[in-house]
Amino acid sequence: MVDLDNLNYENGLVMAVAQDFETNEVLMCAYMDKTALEKTVETGYVHYWSRSRNKLWKKGESSGHLQLLHEMYVDCDMDAVLLKIKQMGASCHEGFYSCFYRTIEGNIVGKKVFEPEDVY
Amino acid sequence: MVDLDNLNYENGLVMAVAQDFETNEVLMCAYMDKTALEKTVETGYVHYWSRSRNKLWKKGESSGHLQLLHEMYVDCDMDAVLLKIKQMGASCHEGFYSCFYRTIEGNIVGKKVFEPEDVY
Repeated sequence: MVDLDNLNYENGLVMAVAQDFETNEVLMCAYMDKTALEKTVETGYVHYWSRSRNKLWKKGESSGHLQLLHEMYVDCDMDAVLLKIKQMGASCHEGFYSCFYRTIEGNIVGKKVFEPEDVY
Repeated sequence: MVDLDNLNYENGLVMAVAQDFETNEVLMCAYMDKTALEKTVETGYVHYWSRSRNKLWKKGESSGHLQLLHEMYVDCDMDAVLLKIKQMGASCHEGFYSCFYRTIEGNIVGKKVFEPEDVY
């Protein structure tokens, strides 16, 4: 087991990338602190650190759009993790399966799973 | 085209995730500033902002392990981009194809492409 004390935290955080464990689609980027990493490993549900709310954030706790951890990887310089997950519902609070639903050209290409006003 | 002035830069930077355009394997995480984004779009070669060297960084410039841009996506809150790329050689300076070559359990599962001492 990688010692979570040995990660290269910056202001207590590492970058986290969530990826669909079956299709490898990248779903979102966020940050995790040591507690979020521990909670994710212990419970099997992905937890992040919410920088806007300044607290531990169990993804999907209010919407039901939980993320179930399948595998977690650490990068070479130990400042980022990759989470292979099963996504319940959708990752994006705007209702898209992935937060990366828009190309740099400005085209909306992502799959819409729900209408936000029906969920939040 | 998404106006690059409208991204939600933090200290001038957005998160960037590079992904193999064919297999969807996630290769690395880094940061980009507006210039790196512009250079990437203009040239088709991925540029990052190196926080350790505090300068624009054309990925693979010294090693030859360039990243050719296929598609770029912006996330919902405009503070992260996803780069679908063709990776020449390997992403990781340690010689692995992906920087995420290690599981949280501590197992080395990534594919080694080169020996660092032969390249750098």
